Amino acid sequence: MNALKNIRIVLVEPQSSGNIGSVCRAMMNMGITDLAVINPHDRHDWDEARRLSCHADTLLDARKTFQTLEEAIGDCTVVAGTSARTGLYRDHGLLPREAAPILLDSAAHHQTALVFGREDTGLTKEELALCTHIINIPSSEIYRSLNLSHAVMVCCYELFLLSGNPSYRPPEERSPEADVAMRERVYARWQEMMLATEFCPPEKLEHMMLGVRRIFNRGKLTDNDARILLGLAQQSLWVCDQWKKAAPDKS
Amino acid sequence: MNALKNIRIVLVEPQSSGNIGSVCRAMMNMGITDLAVINPHDRHDWDEARRLSCHADTLLDARKTFQTLEEAIGDCTVVAGTSARTGLYRDHGLLPREAAPILLDSAAHHQTALVFGREDTGLTKEELALCTHIINIPSSEIYRSLNLSHAVMVCCYELFLLSGNPSYRPPEERSPEADVAMRERVYARWQEMMLATEFCPPEKLEHMMLGVRRIFNRGKLTDNDARILLGLAQQSLWVCDQWKKAAPDKS
Repeated sequence: MNALKNIRIVLVEPQSSGNIGSVCRAMMNMGITDLAVINPHDRHDWDEARRLSCHADTLLDARKTFQTLEEAIGDCTVVAGTSARTGLYRDHGLLPREAAPILLDSAAHHQTALVFGREDTGLTKEELALCTHIINIPSSEIYRSLNLSHAVMVCCYELFLLSGNPSYRPPEERSPEADVAMRERVYARWQEMMLATEFCPPEKLEHMMLGVRRIFNRGKLTDNDARILLGLAQQSLWVCDQWKKAAPDKS
Repeated sequence: MNALKNIRIVLVEPQSSGNIGSVCRAMMNMGITDLAVINPHDRHDWDEARRLSCHADTLLDARKTFQTLEEAIGDCTVVAGTSARTGLYRDHGLLPREAAPILLDSAAHHQTALVFGREDTGLTKEELALCTHIINIPSSEIYRSLNLSHAVMVCCYELFLLSGNPSYRPPEERSPEADVAMRERVYARWQEMMLATEFCPPEKLEHMMLGVRRIFNRGKLTDNDARILLGLAQQSLWVCDQWKKAAPDKS
Protein backbone atom coordinates (compact mmCIF):
# COMPACT_ATOMS: atom_id res chain seq x y z
CA MET A 1 0.00 0.00 0.00
CA ASN A 2 1.25 3.43 -0.95
CA ALA A 3 0.93 5.68 2.12
CA LEU A 4 1.07 8.81 -0.07
CA LYS A 5 -2.46 7.95 -1.27
CA ASN A 6 -3.73 8.69 2.27
CA ILE A 7 -2.15 12.15 2.41
CA ARG A 8 -4.65 14.96 1.86
CA ILE A 9 -3.46 18.47 1.05
CA VAL A 10 -5.93 21.01 2.46
CA LEU A 11 -5.86 24.63 1.27
CA VAL A 12 -7.82 26.98 3.55
CA GLU A 13 -9.37 29.90 1.62
CA PRO A 14 -6.63 30.25 -0.99
CA GLN A 15 -6.82 33.67 -2.64
CA SER A 16 -4.84 33.10 -5.86
CA SER A 17 -6.22 30.82 -8.58
CA GLY A 18 -2.73 30.37 -9.98
CA ASN A 19 -1.50 29.10 -6.62
CA ILE A 20 -4.16 26.39 -6.57
CA GLY A 21 -2.94 25.19 -9.98
CA SER A 22 0.72 25.31 -8.96
CA VAL A 23 -0.11 23.33 -5.82
CA CYS A 24 -1.70 20.59 -8.00
CA ARG A 25 1.49 20.33 -10.06
CA ALA A 26 3.73 20.17 -6.96
CA MET A 27 1.50 17.47 -5.44
CA MET A 28 1.47 15.29 -8.55
CA ASN A 29 5.24 15.67 -9.00
CA MET A 30 5.57 14.24 -5.51
CA GLY A 31 3.03 11.43 -5.90
CA ILE A 32 0.27 13.00 -3.77
CA THR A 33 -3.19 13.31 -5.32
CA ASP A 34 -5.89 14.17 -2.74
CA LEU A 35 -6.69 17.91 -2.71
CA ALA A 36 -9.30 19.65 -0.55
CA VAL A 37 -10.11 23.36 -0.83
CA ILE A 38 -11.88 25.14 2.00
CA ASN A 39 -14.35 27.90 1.19
CA PRO A 40 -12.86 29.13 -2.12
CA HIS A 41 -14.13 32.59 -3.10
CA ASP A 42 -16.38 32.80 -6.16
CA ARG A 43 -14.05 34.97 -8.25
CA HIS A 44 -11.52 32.18 -8.85
CA ASP A 45 -10.26 31.92 -12.41
CA TRP A 46 -10.25 28.14 -12.86
CA ASP A 47 -8.76 28.44 -16.34
CA GLU A 48 -5.75 30.17 -14.80
CA ALA A 49 -5.54 27.41 -12.16
CA ARG A 50 -5.68 24.80 -14.94
CA ARG A 51 -2.95 26.55 -16.92
CA LEU A 52 -0.58 26.51 -13.94
CA SER A 53 -1.40 22.93 -12.97
CA CYS A 54 0.08 21.88 -16.36
CA HIS A 55 -0.33 18.12 -16.62
CA ALA A 56 -1.85 17.87 -13.12
CA ASP A 57 -5.29 19.14 -14.15
CA THR A 58 -6.80 15.75 -13.23
CA LEU A 59 -6.00 16.62 -9.59
CA LEU A 60 -7.60 20.02 -9.98
CA ASP A 61 -10.76 18.44 -11.41
CA ALA A 62 -10.87 15.84 -8.62
CA ARG A 63 -10.54 18.43 -5.81
CA LYS A 64 -13.09 18.33 -3.01
CA THR A 65 -14.59 21.55 -1.68
CA PHE A 66 -15.65 22.07 1.94
CA GLN A 67 -17.14 24.99 3.85
CA THR A 68 -15.00 24.49 6.96
CA LEU A 69 -11.66 22.91 7.85
CA GLU A 70 -13.38 20.68 10.41
CA GLU A 71 -15.46 18.99 7.67
CA ALA A 72 -12.39 18.42 5.46
CA ILE A 73 -10.39 16.65 8.15
CA GLY A 74 -13.16 14.85 10.07
CA ASP A 75 -11.90 11.43 8.91
CA CYS A 76 -8.20 12.21 9.53
CA THR A 77 -6.14 11.15 12.54
CA VAL A 78 -2.92 13.12 12.19
CA VAL A 79 -3.47 16.68 10.94
CA ALA A 80 -0.44 18.92 10.48
CA GLY A 81 -0.98 22.64 10.08
CA THR A 82 1.75 24.81 8.59
CA SER A 83 2.68 28.11 10.16
CA ALA A 84 5.36 30.68 9.45
CA ARG A 85 4.78 32.63 12.63
CA THR A 86 5.99 31.77 16.07
CA GLY A 87 4.06 32.49 19.24
CA LEU A 88 1.36 30.86 21.31
CA TYR A 89 0.95 27.22 20.25
CA ARG A 90 3.20 27.87 17.31
CA ASP A 91 6.49 27.62 19.09
CA HIS A 92 6.48 23.83 19.29
CA GLY A 93 6.53 23.42 15.53
CA LEU A 94 8.29 20.60 13.73
CA LEU A 95 10.57 20.92 10.72
CA PRO A 96 9.04 19.38 7.57
CA ARG A 97 11.73 16.68 7.81
CA GLU A 98 10.76 15.89 11.40
CA ALA A 99 7.07 15.84 10.53
CA ALA A 100 7.51 13.52 7.53
CA PRO A 101 7.84 10.22 9.48
CA ILE A 102 4.92 11.18 11.77
CA LEU A 103 2.71 11.90 8.76
CA LEU A 104 3.82 8.85 6.80
CA ASP A 105 3.48 6.50 9.78
CA SER A 106 -0.07 7.75 10.18
CA ALA A 107 -0.83 7.57 6.45
CA ALA A 108 0.13 3.88 6.39
CA HIS A 109 -3.28 3.15 7.98
CA HIS A 110 -5.28 6.38 8.26
CA GLN A 111 -6.33 9.46 6.36
CA THR A 112 -3.77 12.12 7.17
CA ALA A 113 -3.88 15.84 6.38
CA LEU A 114 -1.43 18.63 5.70
CA VAL A 115 -3.14 22.00 6.09
CA PHE A 116 -2.00 25.27 4.48
CA GLY A 117 -3.51 28.65 5.36
CA ARG A 118 -4.35 31.82 3.43
CA GLU A 119 -1.53 33.46 1.46
CA ASP A 120 -1.63 36.61 3.62
CA THR A 121 -2.83 35.62 7.10
CA GLY A 122 -2.20 31.87 7.28
CA LEU A 123 -4.34 29.74 9.59
CA THR A 124 -6.44 31.20 12.41
CA LYS A 125 -5.93 30.24 16.04
CA GLU A 126 -9.12 28.15 15.84
CA GLU A 127 -7.91 26.32 12.72
CA LEU A 128 -4.52 25.59 14.29
CA ALA A 129 -6.35 24.24 17.35
CA LEU A 130 -7.89 21.57 15.08
CA CYS A 131 -4.41 20.39 14.07
CA THR A 132 -2.57 17.68 15.96
CA HIS A 133 0.84 18.94 14.85
CA ILE A 134 2.33 22.23 13.70
CA ILE A 135 4.98 22.41 10.97
CA ASN A 136 7.27 25.42 10.67
CA ILE A 137 8.99 25.59 7.30
CA PRO A 138 12.41 27.10 7.91
CA SER A 139 13.12 30.31 6.00
CA SER A 140 15.38 33.33 6.07
CA GLU A 141 14.74 35.96 8.75
CA ILE A 142 15.02 38.55 6.00
CA TYR A 143 12.03 37.14 4.13
CA ARG A 144 9.99 34.54 6.01
CA SER A 145 6.83 34.07 3.99
CA LEU A 146 6.86 31.38 1.29
CA ASN A 147 4.65 31.25 -1.76
CA LEU A 148 1.80 28.78 -1.10
CA SER A 149 2.85 26.28 -3.79
CA HIS A 150 6.49 26.48 -2.62
CA ALA A 151 5.39 25.61 0.93
CA VAL A 152 3.36 22.66 -0.40
CA MET A 153 6.33 21.56 -2.53
CA VAL A 154 8.76 21.50 0.42
CA CYS A 155 6.40 19.42 2.58
CA CYS A 156 5.43 17.01 -0.23
CA TYR A 157 9.10 16.63 -1.26
CA GLU A 158 10.00 15.48 2.25
CA LEU A 159 7.13 12.95 2.23
CA PHE A 160 7.99 11.67 -1.26
CA LEU A 161 11.65 11.28 -0.36
CA LEU A 162 10.91 9.39 2.86
CA SER A 163 8.29 7.15 1.22
CA GLY A 164 10.88 6.06 -1.36
CA ASN A 165 13.66 5.56 1.18
CA PRO A 166 14.39 1.83 1.38
CA SER A 167 15.34 2.15 5.07
CA TYR A 168 11.90 3.52 5.98
CA ARG A 169 9.41 0.93 7.24
CA PRO A 170 5.81 1.95 7.96
CA PRO A 171 4.50 0.81 11.36
CA GLU A 172 2.05 -2.04 11.83
CA GLU A 173 -1.34 -0.94 13.04
CA ARG A 174 -2.04 -1.80 16.68
CA SER A 175 -5.07 0.03 18.06
CA PRO A 176 -7.16 2.21 15.77
CA GLU A 177 -6.53 5.91 16.28
CA ALA A 178 -9.23 8.45 17.08
CA ASP A 179 -10.02 10.67 14.14
CA VAL A 180 -10.64 14.42 14.33
CA ALA A 181 -14.42 14.04 14.65
CA MET A 182 -13.99 11.74 17.68
CA ARG A 183 -11.40 14.01 19.27
CA GLU A 184 -13.64 17.05 18.82
CA ARG A 185 -16.44 15.16 20.66
CA VAL A 186 -13.98 14.61 23.55
CA TYR A 187 -12.91 18.26 23.63
CA ALA A 188 -16.53 19.51 23.56
CA ARG A 189 -17.41 17.33 26.55
CA TRP A 190 -14.25 18.31 28.43
CA GLN A 191 -15.07 21.94 27.87
CA GLU A 192 -18.50 21.43 29.45
CA MET A 193 -16.89 19.58 32.36
CA MET A 194 -14.32 22.31 33.00
CA LEU A 195 -17.09 24.90 33.26
CA ALA A 196 -19.53 22.78 35.25
CA THR A 197 -16.93 21.76 37.82
CA GLU A 198 -15.88 25.41 38.03
CA PHE A 199 -12.36 24.26 37.19
CA CYS A 200 -11.89 27.48 35.23
CA PRO A 201 -13.97 30.64 34.67
CA PRO A 202 -15.58 31.11 31.20
CA GLU A 203 -13.13 33.86 30.23
CA LYS A 204 -10.16 31.49 30.66
CA LEU A 205 -11.83 28.51 29.00
CA GLU A 206 -10.48 29.06 25.50
CA HIS A 207 -6.90 29.35 26.65
CA MET A 208 -7.23 26.30 28.89
CA MET A 209 -8.71 24.23 26.03
CA LEU A 210 -5.67 24.97 23.88
CA GLY A 211 -3.57 23.51 26.68
CA VAL A 212 -5.79 20.41 26.85
CA ARG A 213 -5.59 19.91 23.08
CA ARG A 214 -1.85 20.17 23.23
CA ILE A 215 -1.61 17.49 25.93
CA PHE A 216 -3.71 14.98 23.97
CA ASN A 217 -1.98 15.75 20.66
CA ARG A 218 1.44 15.00 22.02
CA GLY A 219 1.12 11.25 21.51
CA LYS A 220 -1.23 9.03 19.58
CA LEU A 221 -4.80 8.95 20.85
CA THR A 222 -6.56 5.66 20.16
CA ASP A 223 -10.31 5.20 19.88
CA ASN A 224 -10.21 3.47 23.27
CA ASP A 225 -8.34 6.41 24.84
CA ALA A 226 -10.95 8.78 23.43
CA ARG A 227 -13.81 6.70 24.86
CA ILE A 228 -12.18 6.73 28.32
CA LEU A 229 -11.76 10.52 28.23
CA LEU A 230 -15.33 10.94 27.03
CA GLY A 231 -16.71 8.68 29.80
CA LEU A 232 -14.72 10.46 32.47
CA ALA A 233 -16.13 13.87 31.46
CA GLN A 234 -19.63 12.41 31.18
CA GLN A 235 -19.41 11.04 34.72
CA SER A 236 -18.06 14.28 36.10
CA LEU A 237 -20.94 16.17 34.47
CA TRP A 238 -23.36 13.71 36.09
CA VAL A 239 -21.81 14.52 39.50
CA CYS A 240 -22.21 18.25 38.83
CA ASP A 241 -25.85 17.65 38.04
CA GLN A 242 -26.37 15.72 41.30
CA TRP A 243 -24.62 18.47 43.22
CA LYS A 244 -26.85 21.18 41.77
CA LYS A 245 -29.94 19.13 42.60
CA ALA A 246 -28.71 18.61 46.19
CA ALA A 247 -27.72 22.25 46.66
CA PRO A 248 -30.48 24.25 44.87
CA ASP A 249 -28.68 27.58 45.43
CA LYS A 250 -25.98 26.37 42.94
CA SER A 251 -28.33 26.07 39.99
CA MET B 1 31.23 33.93 6.62
CA ASN B 2 27.87 32.93 5.21
CA ALA B 3 28.49 30.36 2.47
CA LEU B 4 25.05 31.00 0.96
CA LYS B 5 26.37 34.37 -0.27
CA ASN B 6 28.66 32.46 -2.67
CA ILE B 7 25.85 30.41 -4.19
CA ARG B 8 24.77 31.65 -7.63
CA ILE B 9 21.47 30.51 -9.15
CA VAL B 10 21.80 30.41 -12.94
CA LEU B 11 18.70 30.25 -15.14
CA VAL B 12 19.47 29.26 -18.73
CA GLU B 13 17.05 30.85 -21.22
CA PRO B 14 13.97 30.85 -18.96
CA GLN B 15 10.80 31.24 -21.04
CA SER B 16 8.29 32.41 -18.42
CA SER B 17 8.63 35.86 -16.84
CA GLY B 18 6.53 34.74 -13.90
CA ASN B 19 8.94 31.87 -13.23
CA ILE B 20 11.88 34.29 -12.97
CA GLY B 21 9.97 36.26 -10.32
CA SER B 22 8.95 33.13 -8.41
CA VAL B 23 12.58 31.96 -8.46
CA CYS B 24 13.65 35.28 -6.85
CA ARG B 25 11.15 34.77 -4.04
CA ALA B 26 12.22 31.14 -3.43
CA MET B 27 15.88 32.23 -3.37
CA MET B 28 15.35 35.05 -0.90
CA ASN B 29 13.19 32.84 1.35
CA MET B 30 16.18 30.51 1.53
CA GLY B 31 18.83 33.20 2.07
CA ILE B 32 20.34 33.02 -1.44
CA THR B 33 20.65 36.28 -3.37
CA ASP B 34 22.90 35.94 -6.46
CA LEU B 35 20.86 35.44 -9.67
CA ALA B 36 22.23 35.11 -13.19
CA VAL B 37 20.02 34.84 -16.27
CA ILE B 38 21.45 33.47 -19.51
CA ASN B 39 20.20 34.92 -22.79
CA PRO B 40 16.68 35.98 -21.74
CA HIS B 41 14.39 36.57 -24.72
CA ASP B 42 13.27 40.15 -25.39
CA ARG B 43 9.55 39.55 -24.84
CA HIS B 44 9.88 39.10 -21.07
CA ASP B 45 7.25 40.92 -19.03
CA TRP B 46 9.40 42.23 -16.19
CA ASP B 47 6.35 43.69 -14.40
CA GLU B 48 4.92 40.17 -14.21
CA ALA B 49 8.28 38.90 -12.90
CA ARG B 50 8.28 41.66 -10.28
CA ARG B 51 4.72 40.86 -9.22
CA LEU B 52 5.60 37.20 -8.60
CA SER B 53 8.88 38.01 -6.85
CA CYS B 54 6.77 39.74 -4.13
CA HIS B 55 9.21 41.21 -1.63
CA ALA B 56 12.24 39.77 -3.46
CA ASP B 57 12.24 42.38 -6.22
CA THR B 58 15.64 43.62 -5.03
CA LEU B 59 17.05 40.27 -6.23
CA LEU B 60 15.31 40.66 -9.56
CA ASP B 61 16.78 44.16 -9.99
CA ALA B 62 20.26 42.94 -9.05
CA ARG B 63 20.23 40.01 -11.52
CA LYS B 64 23.16 39.68 -13.90
CA THR B 65 22.60 38.84 -17.54
CA PHE B 66 25.00 36.79 -19.67
CA GLN B 67 24.97 35.60 -23.26
CA THR B 68 26.36 32.13 -22.48
CA LEU B 69 26.48 29.77 -19.53
CA GLU B 70 30.29 29.66 -19.77
CA GLU B 71 30.53 33.41 -19.03
CA ALA B 72 28.18 33.17 -16.05
CA ILE B 73 30.16 30.43 -14.34
CA GLY B 74 33.72 31.36 -15.31
CA ASP B 75 34.63 32.28 -11.72
CA CYS B 76 32.93 29.23 -10.15
CA THR B 77 34.62 26.05 -8.99
CA VAL B 78 31.75 23.67 -8.30
CA VAL B 79 28.92 23.96 -10.83
CA ALA B 80 25.88 21.71 -10.39
CA GLY B 81 23.46 21.35 -13.28
CA THR B 82 19.94 20.07 -12.66
CA SER B 83 18.42 17.47 -14.90
CA ALA B 84 15.16 15.56 -14.87
CA ARG B 85 16.23 13.15 -17.56
CA THR B 86 18.45 10.13 -17.24
CA GLY B 87 20.85 8.95 -19.89
CA LEU B 88 24.39 9.62 -20.99
CA TYR B 89 26.16 11.71 -18.37
CA ARG B 90 22.92 12.15 -16.56
CA ASP B 91 22.82 8.79 -14.85
CA HIS B 92 25.37 9.65 -12.20
CA GLY B 93 23.17 12.40 -10.75
CA LEU B 94 23.08 13.31 -7.07
CA LEU B 95 20.00 13.88 -4.96
CA PRO B 96 19.65 17.54 -3.87
CA ARG B 97 20.37 16.36 -0.32
CA GLU B 98 23.58 14.63 -1.44
CA ALA B 99 24.66 17.66 -3.47
CA ALA B 100 24.06 20.14 -0.63
CA PRO B 101 27.28 19.42 1.36
CA ILE B 102 29.37 19.42 -1.85
CA LEU B 103 27.97 22.82 -2.86
CA LEU B 104 28.19 24.31 0.62
CA ASP B 105 31.74 23.03 1.20
CA SER B 106 32.73 24.71 -2.05
CA ALA B 107 30.81 27.91 -1.26
CA ALA B 108 32.70 28.33 2.00
CA HIS B 109 35.64 29.61 -0.10
CA HIS B 110 34.61 29.82 -3.77
CA GLN B 111 31.88 31.02 -6.07
CA THR B 112 29.57 28.07 -6.61
CA ALA B 113 26.76 27.70 -9.12
CA LEU B 114 23.47 25.85 -9.37
CA VAL B 115 22.27 25.76 -12.98
CA PHE B 116 18.66 25.28 -14.12
CA GLY B 117 17.70 24.74 -17.76
CA ARG B 118 14.81 25.81 -19.97
CA GLU B 119 11.28 24.96 -18.79
CA ASP B 120 10.67 22.64 -21.75
CA THR B 121 14.00 21.19 -22.84
CA GLY B 122 16.28 21.65 -19.82
CA LEU B 123 20.03 21.95 -20.33
CA THR B 124 21.79 20.90 -23.54
CA LYS B 125 24.52 18.24 -23.63
CA GLU B 126 27.09 21.03 -24.05
CA GLU B 127 25.77 22.96 -21.05
CA LEU B 128 25.78 19.84 -18.88
CA ALA B 129 29.39 19.22 -19.96
CA LEU B 130 30.33 22.54 -18.33
CA CYS B 131 28.93 21.32 -15.00
CA THR B 132 31.08 19.51 -12.47
CA HIS B 133 28.08 17.77 -10.90
CA ILE B 134 24.59 16.74 -11.96
CA ILE B 135 21.60 16.93 -9.62
CA ASN B 136 18.48 14.86 -10.24
CA ILE B 137 15.50 16.11 -8.28
CA PRO B 138 13.43 13.04 -7.38
CA SER B 139 9.86 13.08 -8.64
CA SER B 140 6.97 10.76 -9.41
CA GLU B 141 7.23 8.54 -12.49
CA ILE B 142 3.70 9.64 -13.33
CA TYR B 143 4.72 13.29 -13.66
CA ARG B 144 8.46 13.96 -13.65
CA SER B 145 8.84 17.57 -14.70
CA LEU B 146 8.89 20.20 -11.94
CA ASN B 147 7.99 23.85 -12.34
CA LEU B 148 11.23 25.88 -12.57
CA SER B 149 10.68 27.80 -9.33
CA HIS B 150 9.73 24.56 -7.52
CA ALA B 151 13.00 22.97 -8.65
CA VAL B 152 14.94 26.02 -7.43
CA MET B 153 13.03 25.91 -4.13
CA VAL B 154 13.87 22.26 -3.44
CA CYS B 155 17.60 22.80 -4.08
CA CYS B 156 17.79 26.08 -2.13
CA TYR B 157 15.81 24.55 0.76
CA GLU B 158 18.39 21.77 1.11
CA LEU B 159 21.23 24.32 1.12
CA PHE B 160 19.49 26.61 3.62
CA LEU B 161 18.72 23.71 5.94
CA LEU B 162 22.29 22.41 5.86
CA SER B 163 23.82 25.87 6.31
CA GLY B 164 21.78 26.34 9.48
CA ASN B 165 22.52 22.86 10.84
CA PRO B 166 24.73 23.27 13.92
CA SER B 167 26.44 19.93 13.19
CA TYR B 168 27.62 21.13 9.77
CA ARG B 169 31.15 22.55 9.69
CA PRO B 170 32.52 24.07 6.48
CA PRO B 171 35.97 22.81 5.48
CA GLU B 172 39.12 24.87 5.87
CA GLU B 173 40.67 25.89 2.62
CA ARG B 174 43.84 24.03 1.74
CA SER B 175 44.80 24.55 -1.86
CA PRO B 176 42.79 26.95 -4.02
CA GLU B 177 40.51 25.17 -6.46
CA ALA B 178 40.56 25.66 -10.21
CA ASP B 179 37.61 27.65 -11.47
CA VAL B 180 35.65 26.87 -14.62
CA ALA B 181 37.73 29.22 -16.80
CA MET B 182 40.93 27.42 -15.76
CA ARG B 183 39.41 23.99 -16.24
CA GLU B 184 38.16 24.93 -19.69
CA ARG B 185 41.77 25.94 -20.61
CA VAL B 186 42.89 22.46 -19.52
CA TYR B 187 40.15 20.73 -21.53
CA ALA B 188 40.92 22.77 -24.65
CA ARG B 189 44.61 21.81 -24.48
CA TRP B 190 43.80 18.16 -23.75
CA GLN B 191 41.52 18.09 -26.76
CA GLU B 192 44.38 19.34 -28.97
CA MET B 193 46.68 16.74 -27.44
CA MET B 194 44.27 13.89 -28.02
CA LEU B 195 44.02 14.79 -31.72
CA ALA B 196 47.72 15.52 -32.25
CA THR B 197 48.86 12.29 -30.62
CA GLU B 198 46.24 10.47 -32.70
CA PHE B 199 44.87 9.10 -29.43
CA CYS B 200 41.42 9.32 -30.95
CA PRO B 201 39.97 10.22 -34.37
CA PRO B 202 38.17 13.59 -34.73
CA GLU B 203 34.73 11.96 -34.92
CA LYS B 204 35.17 10.36 -31.50
CA LEU B 205 36.69 13.44 -29.87
CA GLU B 206 33.49 14.90 -28.40
CA HIS B 207 32.47 11.67 -26.73
CA MET B 208 36.00 11.12 -25.38
CA MET B 209 36.12 14.66 -23.96
CA LEU B 210 32.93 14.02 -21.97
CA GLY B 211 34.72 11.06 -20.40
CA VAL B 212 37.76 13.22 -19.61
CA ARG B 213 35.57 15.92 -18.01
CA ARG B 214 33.86 13.31 -15.91
CA ILE B 215 37.19 11.96 -14.61
CA PHE B 216 38.43 15.38 -13.52
CA ASN B 217 35.08 16.42 -12.04
CA ARG B 218 34.92 13.43 -9.74
CA GLY B 219 37.11 15.03 -7.07
CA LYS B 220 38.31 18.52 -6.36
CA LEU B 221 40.72 19.97 -8.90
CA THR B 222 43.13 22.51 -7.42
CA ASP B 223 44.89 25.26 -9.33
CA ASN B 224 48.10 23.24 -8.98
CA ASP B 225 46.43 20.12 -10.40
CA ALA B 226 45.19 22.17 -13.34
CA ARG B 227 48.67 23.56 -14.01
CA ILE B 228 50.14 20.04 -14.01
CA LEU B 229 47.51 18.80 -16.49
CA LEU B 230 48.05 21.85 -18.66
CA GLY B 231 51.86 21.37 -18.64
CA LEU B 232 51.56 17.71 -19.46
CA ALA B 233 49.40 18.43 -22.53
CA GLN B 234 51.68 21.28 -23.55
CA GLN B 235 54.71 18.97 -23.43
CA SER B 236 52.96 16.24 -25.35
CA LEU B 237 52.02 18.77 -28.05
CA TRP B 238 55.67 19.84 -28.21
CA VAL B 239 56.67 16.20 -28.81
CA CYS B 240 54.08 15.92 -31.59
CA ASP B 241 55.57 19.00 -33.15
CA GLN B 242 59.12 17.54 -32.99
CA TRP B 243 57.86 14.31 -34.46
CA LYS B 244 56.23 16.07 -37.41
CA LYS B 245 59.42 18.03 -38.07
CA ALA B 246 61.53 14.84 -37.94
CA ALA B 247 59.12 12.87 -40.11
CA PRO B 248 57.93 15.42 -42.72
CA ASP B 249 55.44 12.94 -44.24
CA LYS B 250 53.37 13.26 -41.04
CA SER B 251 52.66 16.97 -41.36
